[in-house]
Amino acid sequence: MRGPANAEEASATTPRRGSIRLGLLGCGTVGGGVLELCAANARWLEGRVGAPLEVRRVLVRDPRKERVAACDPSWITTRPEDVVDDPEIDIVVEVMGGEEAALELVERAIAAGKGVVTANKLLLAKHGPRLVDLAIARGTDLAFEGAVGGGIPIIRTLREAFASDWVERLAGIVNGTCNYVLGRMREGGLGLDEAVREAQAKGYAEADPSLDTGGHDAAHKLCVLAMLAFGARVPASALHVEGIEGIEERDHRYAERFGYVIKHLAIGRDFGDAIELRVHPTLIPKTSVLANVSGVLNAILLEGRALGPCMLYGRGAGDLPTAVSVVSDILDVGRSIVAGASGLLTRGIAMEPRPLKPQEDVETRYYLRLSAPERPGLMARIAGGLGELGVSLEQMVQPERPTAPGDPVDIVVITHVAREGNVTAALERMRTEGLFAAPPRLYRIEVS
Amino acid sequence: MRGPANAEEASATTPRRGSIRLGLLGCGTVGGGVLELCAANARWLEGRVGAPLEVRRVLVRDPRKERVAACDPSWITTRPEDVVDDPEIDIVVEVMGGEEAALELVERAIAAGKGVVTANKLLLAKHGPRLVDLAIARGTDLAFEGAVGGGIPIIRTLREAFASDWVERLAGIVNGTCNYVLGRMREGGLGLDEAVREAQAKGYAEADPSLDTGGHDAAHKLCVLAMLAFGARVPASALHVEGIEGIEERDHRYAERFGYVIKHLAIGRDFGDAIELRVHPTLIPKTSVLANVSGVLNAILLEGRALGPCMLYGRGAGDLPTAVSVVSDILDVGRSIVAGASGLLTRGIAMEPRPLKPQEDVETRYYLRLSAPERPGLMARIAGGLGELGVSLEQMVQPERPTAPGDPVDIVVITHVAREGNVTAALERMRTEGLFAAPPRLYRIEVS
Ligand SMILES: NC(=O)c1ccc[n+]([C@@H]2O[C@H](COP(=O)([O-])OP(=O)(O)OC[C@H]3O[C@@H](n4cnc5c(N)ncnc54)[C@H](OP(=O)(O)O)[C@@H]3O)[C@@H](O)[C@H]2O)c1
Ligand SMILES: NC(=O)c1ccc[n+]([C@@H]2O[C@H](COP(=O)([O-])OP(=O)(O)OC[C@H]3O[C@@H](n4cnc5c(N)ncnc54)[C@H](OP(=O)(O)O)[C@@H]3O)[C@@H](O)[C@H]2O)c1
Repeated sequence: MRGPANAEEASATTPRRGSIRLGLLGCGTVGGGVLELCAANARWLEGRVGAPLEVRRVLVRDPRKERVAACDPSWITTRPEDVVDDPEIDIVVEVMGGEEAALELVERAIAAGKGVVTANKLLLAKHGPRLVDLAIARGTDLAFEGAVGGGIPIIRTLREAFASDWVERLAGIVNGTCNYVLGRMREGGLGLDEAVREAQAKGYAEADPSLDTGGHDAAHKLCVLAMLAFGARVPASALHVEGIEGIEERDHRYAERFGYVIKHLAIGRDFGDAIELRVHPTLIPKTSVLANVSGVLNAILLEGRALGPCMLYGRGAGDLPTAVSVVSDILDVGRSIVAGASGLLTRGIAMEPRPLKPQEDVETRYYLRLSAPERPGLMARIAGGLGELGVSLEQMVQPERPTAPGDPVDIVVITHVAREGNVTAALERMRTEGLFAAPPRLYRIEVS
Repeated sequence: MRGPANAEEASATTPRRGSIRLGLLGCGTVGGGVLELCAANARWLEGRVGAPLEVRRVLVRDPRKERVAACDPSWITTRPEDVVDDPEIDIVVEVMGGEEAALELVERAIAAGKGVVTANKLLLAKHGPRLVDLAIARGTDLAFEGAVGGGIPIIRTLREAFASDWVERLAGIVNGTCNYVLGRMREGGLGLDEAVREAQAKGYAEADPSLDTGGHDAAHKLCVLAMLAFGARVPASALHVEGIEGIEERDHRYAERFGYVIKHLAIGRDFGDAIELRVHPTLIPKTSVLANVSGVLNAILLEGRALGPCMLYGRGAGDLPTAVSVVSDILDVGRSIVAGASGLLTRGIAMEPRPLKPQEDVETRYYLRLSAPERPGLMARIAGGLGELGVSLEQMVQPERPTAPGDPVDIVVITHVAREGNVTAALERMRTEGLFAAPPRLYRIEVS
C-alpha cells in the first residue's frame, strides 16, 4: 500500500536474487488475507525482503470453493506434496489449522530445509518446542507471530525487545470471545448464555464456543508465550485452566463493589526456580490498564525486570490483523534467506524444561462467593474456618438480604495473600461439614 | 539474566566468529545501563548474536568521574577518534546526547562502515533522514529504538510488524514530564508551576523543563516516528508544536465536565496526498485507552489500515528501560554483521519528502475557553461569530457564575468538526472587536 516511489527506492539498493517462493497450506480467513496483502504491497515488500515474493502453490480441501481475488486459480492444489515437497518453494505458510495434518506437513517442510510461518496456536502449544528444535537443527526458521494476539506484535517483542531483559510476569487478555462475553455480562447485565449467543450472532464466537469459553484457546496461547518469555518447554496439559462458564452476573456486581472487574486472563510468572502458568477468570482493579480493554480486543502486559511494565494492545483476531502478522514473519524469514542467514531468528529461542509450580502452591489473593443458609454466627464460622488454615480476610460482606429467613444468602470474602492449597482445603472442610447451600466459588485477584 | 544452560544451548548452535566489538560514546544514565545489561547477560547475548559482545572503548568528558561497576576503567577515553576511527570497532553506540558533536561522530562512524546505535532523538529529528541515507549508501545499519518511548518497542513495531500495513494515524503520549504534570493538575488540583516543581523534585523534570513542557521533545520524537510510520522526510521545524504552559487547572475541570481528559499528544495522520504532524494538548474521551495512561508512562496508539488499532505502553525513559532498547538494537545490528548482511535493517526505511498539511487546514473538533464580561446576548454573539465562518457548535456553557455583575466569565465551547483556519479567524475577528477580556484559548479534541 506504500507509494511506488518508496518501493523503487528501497529495491534499487537491495542485492538482486531470484524471488522468494511461497507455498500456502490453507486459503481461508487468514490465508486469504495473506494473499491479499502480498498482492496489494508487492513492490514495497520486495524492497523490504531484497527479492520479490512469489506465491507458487496454495493447498485447500475443496478446489471448487471461491477464493479471494488475489488467489490465482492456477495455484490451487489439493495435494500437500505439491507444497511441502516442491524444492522450488522457499517458505511454507501454514494457515490451515488443526493438529495432525498440519504437524506432519510442517515437519516435512522443516526437514526439507524450508522456512515455515504458522499461525496455528494449537500446533505450537502441543508441538512447538519440538518444532523449534527441528528448525534449529536443520538451520531453518520457524516463525509464528500470528499465533498469539492476532495483529499484536507480541512474539517479536518477546524475542527481540526483551532480548536483554528477564520477563518476571505476564498477564494477558488473549481470548476475544471471553473478553466480549464478560464485558456484555458486566455492562449489559446479560446472563452468560445470553452473552455467548450474542457473541455468536456477531461472529465473535464459534458454533461450539467451548474451546474459547473453556479457556483452552487461551491456554494454547499461554504455552506459546511461555516458550519465549520464560524459555519454558511446558506441555499444554500441565497448565491450570479454568474457563468463564461458572461466572454469574452477580459476580460482576460483587466485584464492582470492591473496585474490581472480572477478566479472563492468561498469567505467567517466573520465580527463577519455577514458573507459574495459569488461565482463569481474575479480578483486577478497575483502574488497571487491562481493565479497560474492552470488546474483542486483546492485550498483553509484560513486566520486565529492567524494562518495567510494557503493554501491547490491539485486535486479537480477524483476517487482516492476523495476516499482517503472518506477512511480517514472511518478511523476516525471507530476509534471512536472502541474506544466507536462515535459522538466525529461531536460534534465539532457547528452551529448557522448567518446573511448573503446582496450583496449590500459588500464592495470591482470592474472591470467594459462598452460599449458605442465613443464621447467627455464619460470618464468624466462615472466618474461623478460613483462619484455621491461616487464610486471613481483608473483607467479608453479605451483599444482599435473603428472600426469606433461613434462605441461602451469598457471602463474599476477599482474602489477603494466601496459599491456594490452604484456601481450597478450608473450603472443602466447611463444605463437608454441610455449611454451604451450593458449591463455593473461588476466583483469583491480581493486584497490578 | 537468563540461565547459563540457555545461553550454552543457544551458542553451541551458532557459527563461530570473532567478537562483535562495541565502542560507546557516552557513559551516563543510558550508557551505564547498557554496560550493566551487557555484563549481566553476556552469555545469553552471545547466543543471540552468534558472537560475544566485547566493549572496547567508552568516550566520556570527565575521565575522573565514577562509573558503573560494569565499566572497566581501561575502556575510558576522552578522545573521540579512539572510538570512531578504530578499525577494530564494529558498532558505535551513541548515548552522549546533544547535536553537533554527536552528529559529527555518528557521520564518521557510518562513513567508516560501522554499525551505529543511537538513542538521540534530537539528532534524529534534525538529521535522521540524512543519516539513514548515509547508512544505506554505505551498506551499514543505523538503529534507534531507544530514541522514542524508552523501553517501548515502537520503532521495531513500525519497522517490522507494520511492514505490510499502512499507518493511517498515530497518537502518542511520548513525553513523561508533560503527562505527569497534567495528571497532577487534574488529580491533585495543582497549578501548572506547582506540578512542574513537584516533577522536578521527583527527578521527572529537568532544572530547565522547557524542552519538555514546551513540546519540543515530543516534536523530536514525532519526527522520528514519522520517518517510519509515513516514510516522511520532514524537518523538525515544520511541525506545529504547542506545549502545556497555557493550561490552567480549570481547563481540566471543564474538560472533565464534558467527559474528556487533557493529554499532551503527538499526532500524525496520513491522508495519502499529505500528512499531518502536530504536537499539542488534546482533549480525549475519558474512556479512551490513552486517557488511562498515568504518571510518567508513555503510550503510542497506531491505527493500521489492515491491523486496526494497536497500542504500546510502558516506561518512556529511565536508565534500564532505555538501555534494554539500545541493547536490542545492538543485537539486531550485531546479528546482521555476523550474518554478513549489514544494512538490511536500515534499507527498509524508505523516505521521501511528503507535503505537510498547513495547520489552518487541519480539521478536527475544538474546545475553546473564552473570557468575556458578562452581558445579555453574549452567548448568541459568540455562537454567531463562529457561525459566520461556518463553525458549528456542539455545546456551549458558562461553567461558573461571575463574582460580580459585569465581571469576566468563562464561556466554554465545544465545536463540531471544523477547519482550524476558520476557527482561528472567527476568534481573531471577535477579539479585534473587543469582545474578550483575555486571549481566547483553543485546544483540539481527538475522538478516538
Ligand atoms: N481467523 C483468525 O482470526 C485467526 C487468528 C489467529 C490465528 N488463526 C489461526 O490461523 C489458522 C487458520 O485459521 P483460519 O481462520 O484462516 O481457518 P479457515 O478459515 O478455516 O481456513 C482453513 C483453510 O485451510 C484449508 N484446510 C484445512 N484443513 C485442510 C486439509 N487437511 N487439507 C487441505 N486444506 C485444508 C481449508 O481449505 P478449504 O477452504 O477448501 O476448506 C481452508 O482454506 C488456524 O490455525 C487458526 O488457529 C486464526
Ligand atoms: N535518560 C533517559 O531516560 C533517556 C531516554 C531516552 C533517550 N535518551 C537519550 O540518550 C542520550 C543519553 O542520555 P543520558 O540521559 O544517558 O545522558 P547523560 O546521563 O548526560 O550522559 C551523557 C554521557 O555522554 C558523555 N558526553 C556528553 N557529551 C560529550 C562530549 N562532547 N564528549 C565526550 N563525552 C560526552 C558524558 O560524559 P561525562 O559523564 O564525562 O559527563 C556522559 O557520560 C541522549 O541523547 C538522550 O536524549 C535518554
